[in-house]
Amino acid sequence: MATGSVVKLLGVWASPFVNRVEIALKIKSVEYEFIQETLLNKSELLLKSNPVYKKIPVLFCDEKPICESLVILQYIDEAWPNSPFILPSDPYDRAIARFWAAYIDEKWFPLVVEFRNAEGKEAKAAVLEKMSEGNLLLEEAFIKISKGKSFFGGERIGYLDIVLGSLLGWVKAHEIMDEMKILDDIKMPSLAEWDERFCSDKVVKDIIPQPEKLVEVYRKYHKMKKATSN
Amino acid sequence: MATGSVVKLLGVWASPFVNRVEIALKIKSVEYEFIQETLLNKSELLLKSNPVYKKIPVLFCDEKPICESLVILQYIDEAWPNSPFILPSDPYDRAIARFWAAYIDEKWFPLVVEFRNAEGKEAKAAVLEKMSEGNLLLEEAFIKISKGKSFFGGERIGYLDIVLGSLLGWVKAHEIMDEMKILDDIKMPSLAEWDERFCSDKVVKDIIPQPEKLVEVYRKYHKMKKATSN
Repeated sequence: MATGSVVKLLGVWASPFVNRVEIALKIKSVEYEFIQETLLNKSELLLKSNPVYKKIPVLFCDEKPICESLVILQYIDEAWPNSPFILPSDPYDRAIARFWAAYIDEKWFPLVVEFRNAEGKEAKAAVLEKMSEGNLLLEEAFIKISKGKSFFGGERIGYLDIVLGSLLGWVKAHEIMDEMKILDDIKMPSLAEWDERFCSDKVVKDIIPQPEKLVEVYRKYHKMKKATSN
Repeated sequence: MATGSVVKLLGVWASPFVNRVEIALKIKSVEYEFIQETLLNKSELLLKSNPVYKKIPVLFCDEKPICESLVILQYIDEAWPNSPFILPSDPYDRAIARFWAAYIDEKWFPLVVEFRNAEGKEAKAAVLEKMSEGNLLLEEAFIKISKGKSFFGGERIGYLDIVLGSLLGWVKAHEIMDEMKILDDIKMPSLAEWDERFCSDKVVKDIIPQPEKLVEVYRKYHKMKKATSN
């Protein structure tokens, strides 16, 4: 049990993967210090504590680093075994949650990144076409897992809500920048309603940035990056 | 708790991902029925029970399917909470085990597949060059995690032993077929010794196929595939 441990989170506020950890720590009422990372010049602390990926978030528990957001979420649930739990209690439900979390990070979100990087409306539309099957899978998964309740986690936010929900701020930011819909409310009505519930949740709303703020930070970051590489 | 459940495993004996599940079930003394999958013509059962990836293994617990080997291993550990446990008991050690398991499946093994698919000695040597950093990371991880004991899991086989060890049969099969070393015993002495211990373990040795058998099945499969596509 990690009660009484000194907890620090290395990250930036605009990272959805950092947001995941912030939400989990808040749900578990864990006090922590936020250490600001700078992305254009990665800090010594980041390079030392995550030499494999050199990526945020890194959670430190009494100086010991833990990397990769899905690993960190499960760690938080196990290290602070006070309720509410983030993962479901039933082993089968946990397996289903882990399956979809991996799907979201390994298959679905990479297509959002591909959409972002595609140049021109036509190339972007081609990525959206590739995404349509996965989007429907997520809509079906939500209906099946939530069983008519508000969240993947039932009556309250759980693991899959955090994993998928954290990414939607950036999805909406890219929708604004490219004036194209990535998630179709008409084809995904249940997820559209869930999204509204998730983003207005009292824990989430102070953590997940507004899409307009993300658009701003995205443009600023790319301007800085361009200036640095010139 | 899943004691008394009807357990079935859909797979083929030559799949390292199926082998993982077989080892875990054997460690936990879970009785199960093995359902043979045919890979050239995927069965209805496979398509229905794993519509997202259409891949083996699929574990059925009272007809409910669970997919993806890492998810299945964790499910087995949680559904049969009798010792010995496959994952470490400490939350931090569990996080480290999950981190490296994901690294092995998402970063390291895809390079083994790239090596297999590369055409010609030069292209294969280029992949080996790309693999060298990851190989050393695994060697260091083993030293750090095992803390001088026999296995990643300490005195006995655990999660990471199963995850990495299951893949080594195929690594050796490709070494035989291409007459090139993928894992360098001189640069990875601790892992080389671990590999010997792992493969001679009483649970493992009846499950992980001999490399020569895998060479045989690989050549036969490709001959069949070619005949089917002609």
